[in-house]
Amino acid sequence: MSQHTQALTEFLANLHYEQLPEAVISRTEDLFLDWLGSALASQASHPIPLFERYAAKMGPASGPAGILVNGTSSSAYFAALVNGASSHLVEQDDLHNSSVLHPATVVFPAVLAAAQDLGKTGRELIVAAVAGYEAGIRIGEFLGRSHYRIFHTTATVGTLAAAVGVGKLMGFNQEQFTDVLGSAGTQAAGLWEFLRDAADSKQLHTAKAAADGLLAAYLTAEGLSGAKNILEGEQGMAAGMSSDANPACLSDRLGSRWALTETSFKFHASCRHTHPAADALLELMQREQLRAQDIASVTTRVHQGAIDVLGRVRVPQTVHQAKFSMGTVLGLIAVYGKAGLPEFHQHSLTDPRIADFCSRVCMVLDEEVDGAYPQRWLGRVEVTTVQGRTLRGRIDEPKGDPGNTLSRAELEDKFRRLLAFSGARNDAQATGLIGRVWQLRHLDDLGVLTRLPASVENAS
Amino acid sequence: MSQHTQALTEFLANLHYEQLPEAVISRTEDLFLDWLGSALASQASHPIPLFERYAAKMGPASGPAGILVNGTSSSAYFAALVNGASSHLVEQDDLHNSSVLHPATVVFPAVLAAAQDLGKTGRELIVAAVAGYEAGIRIGEFLGRSHYRIFHTTATVGTLAAAVGVGKLMGFNQEQFTDVLGSAGTQAAGLWEFLRDAADSKQLHTAKAAADGLLAAYLTAEGLSGAKNILEGEQGMAAGMSSDANPACLSDRLGSRWALTETSFKFHASCRHTHPAADALLELMQREQLRAQDIASVTTRVHQGAIDVLGRVRVPQTVHQAKFSMGTVLGLIAVYGKAGLPEFHQHSLTDPRIADFCSRVCMVLDEEVDGAYPQRWLGRVEVTTVQGRTLRGRIDEPKGDPGNTLSRAELEDKFRRLLAFSGARNDAQATGLIGRVWQLRHLDDLGVLTRLPASVENAS
Repeated sequence: MSQHTQALTEFLANLHYEQLPEAVISRTEDLFLDWLGSALASQASHPIPLFERYAAKMGPASGPAGILVNGTSSSAYFAALVNGASSHLVEQDDLHNSSVLHPATVVFPAVLAAAQDLGKTGRELIVAAVAGYEAGIRIGEFLGRSHYRIFHTTATVGTLAAAVGVGKLMGFNQEQFTDVLGSAGTQAAGLWEFLRDAADSKQLHTAKAAADGLLAAYLTAEGLSGAKNILEGEQGMAAGMSSDANPACLSDRLGSRWALTETSFKFHASCRHTHPAADALLELMQREQLRAQDIASVTTRVHQGAIDVLGRVRVPQTVHQAKFSMGTVLGLIAVYGKAGLPEFHQHSLTDPRIADFCSRVCMVLDEEVDGAYPQRWLGRVEVTTVQGRTLRGRIDEPKGDPGNTLSRAELEDKFRRLLAFSGARNDAQATGLIGRVWQLRHLDDLGVLTRLPASVENAS
Repeated sequence: MSQHTQALTEFLANLHYEQLPEAVISRTEDLFLDWLGSALASQASHPIPLFERYAAKMGPASGPAGILVNGTSSSAYFAALVNGASSHLVEQDDLHNSSVLHPATVVFPAVLAAAQDLGKTGRELIVAAVAGYEAGIRIGEFLGRSHYRIFHTTATVGTLAAAVGVGKLMGFNQEQFTDVLGSAGTQAAGLWEFLRDAADSKQLHTAKAAADGLLAAYLTAEGLSGAKNILEGEQGMAAGMSSDANPACLSDRLGSRWALTETSFKFHASCRHTHPAADALLELMQREQLRAQDIASVTTRVHQGAIDVLGRVRVPQTVHQAKFSMGTVLGLIAVYGKAGLPEFHQHSLTDPRIADFCSRVCMVLDEEVDGAYPQRWLGRVEVTTVQGRTLRGRIDEPKGDPGNTLSRAELEDKFRRLLAFSGARNDAQATGLIGRVWQLRHLDDLGVLTRLPASVENAS
């Protein structure tokens, strides 16, 4: 095992609540609420009911862990599976920039399910989530950009992040953390190929990452050993799935840099790669007082990753594909001034102005933007107006990024909108959940977070 | 989707029992018995009880699918998981040479569990297994040698083979086979890194391949879509996990070449990469009437894959590692004349003659052997005797290979020895199971293959 993996597992084994700065604890609560809303927003949306039926068929009739979208319960494995599928569907969950990892959708389903199963408290959940975020983000940075070109980092690295979080709940020592990384890393999978067909694999990826990570931790607790050097070894993850891995990332400023606080909240309901351009266009249109019909064409200057992920979609056929269409996102921004879930579901495929605008948007690779990525996600757009003017819009920190983050009031508003969108919980229930999450560090019974809406209502 | 993937999925959708030559049907029964013995031989051996406990914790208390090692039942997912872990442990399950895939340990756990769950017959199980073998072998050949250097093909490709088998039981059409390959391929994982530490990942790999493949098929049946070109696409399996993929392998002589019949049975209880040398040494020692003490040193001339997989183990610390130690295997052959489970468990780590012999064995890369691999596994050894003679042993087809296969009597004998080794079933129960497997094509109730030993005994 290298010094970097060793430093990481030592940090994980020794991590404790008292060591966490207040900003880390409260940001974890912020991220948890944001995650909860993202999961509940997917209720009844394809393909979530498929995962619910699968869990009902293969799992026990009930259990210690809650399934958010339907308020039922199961074993921890199936709760992690269904909640993992749920929380990435509406594309509103958080993202860590430099690792290109969506940590919440893989870490929280696993640690919440395990915490409920093991009777842990909110405080223990917070430490576990921090462990998952800190490890996952550093492993994502370690595997680098070459990994992300083919592999869906949230799926692959997510398996390890989830495993680490559950391992922390179980009080793993350093050796067990080494083992659990081995058993999680050798299960790590997830390819971008599905994007071309708008297939349902993204939900499968997050479901499996959360559930497989949990499985790795439970088997490690039982005594299953894993490869000691799964990250850096000659036949390990970097050897097989990266060409630019940087081991130093694994131990980067452990205990002083809290990578969790660098995580961005999503403001628009689209792929994060569209956000810098969306914000830049919004800035430009507001500054120049432009309307959609004033714009003849838009050139977005982007990083290579945006082209890799978004370049596939020319004319979106589904709402999910629309969220991965740069032109559609910019069309919604131009026509409606926002790109939230209602805009996607009501207008993205049916409003002819959106399709028209979409056809007038192109992406080009920009050296400055690409050089800054993935540490910084710069927004650069060039607009040609119908009058022939050329205008430029730019933002250096998209809305939701750490330096431009969402306040608790904005997070509450987003949460209520997400729940209203799906109808998974009514407004009183939303209020009850918000109150509980802001008290997460004091919660003893984590069951109140997932129990049937009726119980939640009665309790609120 | 390319023509090759298209041809494969079309073949799978149209495959039917009447089309199978008698040799394919009866060989499937042979392979099934061989698999059943391998699974039962692992009863009570670490880490199998860990998987049993995990299934008991996360799954239902009972279900339609049988868990072989303990005679209990669960849902199809957990039966596939535990049986998948079980059947690769003692290293006695089958291997297909040119794909370097162990098909039985991933295909049979999945199709047996699903067949029991869905109430299918032995005949339907046979067609499903053939589909899994034919697809898995071709996908393994497609991904090539570069894949196997880092990835455990039985884990990665095994996920797709299991998914295809279960899909066939479910009567998938071509579109569903395309989807299920997508959902299985994007879950495909398994790295060789664990070998260096003799970690327990091999069981995790086969467990997860069988169970994840089954999961992919059940979700596909529910309507989950997958990437249409997961094998050959720009961000698919070959793009991410191979540098010498050959798409033509995917459609190689579909319907005329039955790759299942090319599968080798394992005669020795060790890693298959040791078998050619073991047989060559046995041949030489018998021909020259040598005893172990006559031998000063052995040089085995091998293919690169043998060095990659076996080169890690210098002095084995566990029985499992001993099975991956060329020197230990040749030591058992030299001292005991065989390398079966009893020799490994009773002598491989404790007999000083074995450790001594082991230290006098080396592997060197041989151009002819490497060039023939993986289509043919040639055995070449050079022995220097204590008298200073240099002798050469060679075999071109190890015992158990298609041209040097095991007879039904030999398979029955191996089966009885495997069951006696673990004590999972007594001899009367073994006889009952053998009788049922030789009637597999006529069996209506597949429950008799896994039910509690007591019931098996009563029924026999």
